Amino acid sequence: MMEMKSLLQVLADLSGTRADNAKPRSTGCTMVIDKGLGLSAYQDLLQLTGEYIDFIKLAFGTATITPPQILQQKIALCKQHGVHLYFGGTFFEIAYSRRKVDEYFQMVRDWGLDWVEISDGTVTIPSETRYRLVQQACQMGFQVITEIGKKMHGYHPTVDEFASMFALDRQAGAAYVIMESRESGQNIGVYDQAGNADCAYLEKLAERIPTQYVIWEAPQVKQQVQLIQLLGNSINLGNIQPSDVMSLESLRRGLRADTLSQFLSH
Amino acid sequence: MMEMKSLLQVLADLSGTRADNAKPRSTGCTMVIDKGLGLSAYQDLLQLTGEYIDFIKLAFGTATITPPQILQQKIALCKQHGVHLYFGGTFFEIAYSRRKVDEYFQMVRDWGLDWVEISDGTVTIPSETRYRLVQQACQMGFQVITEIGKKMHGYHPTVDEFASMFALDRQAGAAYVIMESRESGQNIGVYDQAGNADCAYLEKLAERIPTQYVIWEAPQVKQQVQLIQLLGNSINLGNIQPSDVMSLESLRRGLRADTLSQFLSH
Amino acid sequence: MMEMKSLLQVLADLSGTRADNAKPRSTGCTMVIDKGLGLSAYQDLLQLTGEYIDFIKLAFGTATITPPQILQQKIALCKQHGVHLYFGGTFFEIAYSRRKVDEYFQMVRDWGLDWVEISDGTVTIPSETRYRLVQQACQMGFQVITEIGKKMHGYHPTVDEFASMFALDRQAGAAYVIMESRESGQNIGVYDQAGNADCAYLEKLAERIPTQYVIWEAPQVKQQVQLIQLLGNSINLGNIQPSDVMSLESLRRGLRADTLSQFLSH
Repeated sequence: MMEMKSLLQVLADLSGTRADNAKPRSTGCTMVIDKGLGLSAYQDLLQLTGEYIDFIKLAFGTATITPPQILQQKIALCKQHGVHLYFGGTFFEIAYSRRKVDEYFQMVRDWGLDWVEISDGTVTIPSETRYRLVQQACQMGFQVITEIGKKMHGYHPTVDEFASMFALDRQAGAAYVIMESRESGQNIGVYDQAGNADCAYLEKLAERIPTQYVIWEAPQVKQQVQLIQLLGNSINLGNIQPSDVMSLESLRRGLRADTLSQFLSH
Repeated sequence: MMEMKSLLQVLADLSGTRADNAKPRSTGCTMVIDKGLGLSAYQDLLQLTGEYIDFIKLAFGTATITPPQILQQKIALCKQHGVHLYFGGTFFEIAYSRRKVDEYFQMVRDWGLDWVEISDGTVTIPSETRYRLVQQACQMGFQVITEIGKKMHGYHPTVDEFASMFALDRQAGAAYVIMESRESGQNIGVYDQAGNADCAYLEKLAERIPTQYVIWEAPQVKQQVQLIQLLGNSINLGNIQPSDVMSLESLRRGLRADTLSQFLSH
Repeated sequence: MMEMKSLLQVLADLSGTRADNAKPRSTGCTMVIDKGLGLSAYQDLLQLTGEYIDFIKLAFGTATITPPQILQQKIALCKQHGVHLYFGGTFFEIAYSRRKVDEYFQMVRDWGLDWVEISDGTVTIPSETRYRLVQQACQMGFQVITEIGKKMHGYHPTVDEFASMFALDRQAGAAYVIMESRESGQNIGVYDQAGNADCAYLEKLAERIPTQYVIWEAPQVKQQVQLIQLLGNSINLGNIQPSDVMSLESLRRGLRADTLSQFLSH
């Protein structure tokens, strides 16, 4: 095992990219989407890749139909592994549409969670209200992740639109802002019909805003490759499938062909 | 946990769709396809989503190559969670092609199963024989699921064809009739090359037959969205991937953007 | 359980294809790609389908970021089930690019592994060096799997190119030669943009080389169907998803519609 570790060390030293980026970290974050993992799979995930995961999002409104004892165990496992579990934005939006936001925040706190997502992918929230809600959550002691984007196919905010929404959310107190791509990652946000990233758009955006506060939803492996090749391996990526965490960490470290070739050419 | 439950209750009451549809139920059923789940994954699935699953189908002929002790445990776990496990139609067809149907029914009974699928997706069975076989299975005390459709790409029965086969199967005693889409859900049954549902076809069919006795195979998430948007959330859906059960239940309850927006607009 | 076994026996006897092909076998091999299975999933896989798996490849460089105690348990479980675990070629290539090949081979031996993959999908290795490296690994007592192919989209070696590289690798001592298709299986090796196999190419290749020494990477189910329909059910297939092992074994045995129809027509 000695040789194994030292060989890895050699690699890490030479590629020089993730070696010093242990948790808790603020960039190079990986957010995993949990669309219904059972407990063994959850334990598997954290035992194998807990060091490479920063956030787990309980997708959309699934928290409400997860048996409470399982939800409790998921939360406990996350705490144990230094992973932030939070509820998907759709759950928040349902509460908003039912005029139950205060109760929602209170419930999140009662479950012992520190992070909350605020989005308006399906419901309509005036921007002043959105601003106030982010502030309110921050004042309650939450770390806030906002999401920009409508959950309808063909929605692609302009650079200006994204940049100004981003600025407002950050000003209101948001720690991160998510670029929406849904679960499919096709014809939405920065992705075209075939799921390919709009590189020109991304480069323009990267000039306008500090991207270390963005979490890019990138559900497909090829999107993770494209974004890392374009914006570097310390970008924050979200909606990662549980089964792709090892692959993504390999991409970040130059342990897959797609990024190894980059490191080799330097 | 109090707040969690009550907030869920509020949501369930307002969307008003699944709250009163506990198991055992006869509509809004979900049939999961098991293409080779291991035992931990199986336990995970039932522990987390047992309440949302009505049927688990052991895909095609996999029952024959599943180690018998594992098969036995899968059957026991299903009984414990009120889920009907049954063998895929291809297994029946193999037995039919080997002239071993009587032995097949006997074997299914010996394994303690109550449901049996009768199909002719690959073999050719004259319609009188099919009728007789459904009757025979019913007389042996089985609940019967038939499947309409050929397992070749490009097979799309007309409304008339489907309606008359449906009527015969039901008359012979079938509890449900499955609309074939295979595992891929592309260019077969009600789906085109890209996996999109033929809405006009479905609407015509829904006028001709009582759809509560149909199980629509919908292996892709977008197909589940389309069918629920078109025919309502209490349709029966089949060939659901184990990892998509929570997502489907969220769709049925308006807990995902795709159906939440519907509930909001009412 | 008697009837179950005997009915399976009847089927196996009639289709007559896998019944006598128990492990250890040299053809009809299945190589599974492990992109980050947790321990429960690993146990599930081997318990359910250990008899149908010959090799498990720890994908690309994931071995280096797998916690050592988990790697140790994976290796032990494989030994217990008669499965050969080996490290992905990218790991070898990283070591090669860092001039650490000797240390790499030593490390593989220290982990108790018997198989090693030698590839140049990303790095450039002169063919004489490749030849010498295969020889070196063989002399150290390893069984060697080489891989032919560049990990860039659009790379399709001609029949002549593949045949001559194949001949050299075999002459140097390689037990198997892999036809690269990456994880996606699209626009690479024998697959076109849509992931369909080039049948004319495959038939020409099958005339030129003894295909029992080839492992065809076929990550998509439709590719497994195409290759088995074209080259028979005793070909070696690789990059199989853990969740597709039962399905592939069903294909090999005529227990799925795609190959059942073949057996029926004989």
